[in-house]
Amino acid sequence: MRHGESTANYDHTFTGWSDVSLTAKGKADAHEAGRKLNKTGIQFSDAHTSYLKRAIVSENIVLDEINQLWIPQHKTWRLNERHYGALRGKNKEQVKQEVGEQQFMRWRRSFAAVPPRLQEVDPKRRYQTAGIQEPPAESLKMAYQRLIPYWQDEIVPKLIDGKNQLVVAHGSSLRALIKYIENITDTGIDGVEVHNATPIIYTFNHELQVVNKELIK
Amino acid sequence: MRHGESTANYDHTFTGWSDVSLTAKGKADAHEAGRKLNKTGIQFSDAHTSYLKRAIVSENIVLDEINQLWIPQHKTWRLNERHYGALRGKNKEQVKQEVGEQQFMRWRRSFAAVPPRLQEVDPKRRYQTAGIQEPPAESLKMAYQRLIPYWQDEIVPKLIDGKNQLVVAHGSSLRALIKYIENITDTGIDGVEVHNATPIIYTFNHELQVVNKELIK
Repeated sequence: MRHGESTANYDHTFTGWSDVSLTAKGKADAHEAGRKLNKTGIQFSDAHTSYLKRAIVSENIVLDEINQLWIPQHKTWRLNERHYGALRGKNKEQVKQEVGEQQFMRWRRSFAAVPPRLQEVDPKRRYQTAGIQEPPAESLKMAYQRLIPYWQDEIVPKLIDGKNQLVVAHGSSLRALIKYIENITDTGIDGVEVHNATPIIYTFNHELQVVNKELIK
Repeated sequence: MRHGESTANYDHTFTGWSDVSLTAKGKADAHEAGRKLNKTGIQFSDAHTSYLKRAIVSENIVLDEINQLWIPQHKTWRLNERHYGALRGKNKEQVKQEVGEQQFMRWRRSFAAVPPRLQEVDPKRRYQTAGIQEPPAESLKMAYQRLIPYWQDEIVPKLIDGKNQLVVAHGSSLRALIKYIENITDTGIDGVEVHNATPIIYTFNHELQVVNKELIK
């Protein structure tokens, strides 16, 4: 599931690794998503989320609504949103007007385009602790490359064991994950959008092929 | 820190391993505790809590207020409240009238007294997953014996490394922990009370002796 509406979603700004909060609507929508998920009766063995509080809080709200707050929760920078570099904090409409529709859509939707890089990155304790440096900017491909190892190493073995896994992350990091899970081409992923606070339930067979995909709304 | 006021605290009932919610006041008090803790500037490397949502939610609120939601959170049944057995769900005043002040205080405050045992325990997924059975009742001593191994194995090594640890748990499980940390006698622990949503900061020397204890209120 993608997190609920954030203050940056509300303001239509690029966000990436900035640690913005949920809006009141974002929290309410996460509660509603949790209540709907609860009706499915699905039991998770683990929960995974990013280092960013809009995803962590959304996941905590869902875990509360499904009465599974006690399950282990794993937080990782690898599930962070794609890093939007120097676009971070900028209004999307304004950027579009500055650089034109075509460049704007390339940065937003194409797989390999890297947004303008940050000149300087303030070191943050969370990334130092994880032994990494915050990147100056990421294409969706770069986000994909740092995310998929987490999927392969930490999530797939549990799925193979028949254990349901909850992942609450971000619009673009989930696009990268969906690309991998559904084996979508580099150009095919352009058209994929992931909506806030709308759980997607994937069912896999023993070869980890998708046998069912269901949106909970 | 002990969790904020729960619905059972409000109703003056014995609770133990029952998974009751926080009241609105309990949540507000946890926020306030988090804001006060934030002023100390303390940075944690890990957060620990029980399998019970009144503690988990209180910890999540504190982590949010101190801007450290991203740190690893470890949940364990070993930090659960002492199991109150057949007293669970019963009103404290009523139990006192039924059994008399002396027996009542023995069950509540003495180290070795075991409350009346549950006849039957419904198996819960969280304890099955952890490979344990919910006990029919626990003395404070029994809670101490299952809690201290967690302190020794999961918390002490990180403290020795100089890393601050956040523990959010329960009135009696924290009394057991305080008994160990402060080396309090079996009878001495009778008088110790731990208040809801009031952080206690312990500072240790390299021999794990307490060199400072501060209540944040």
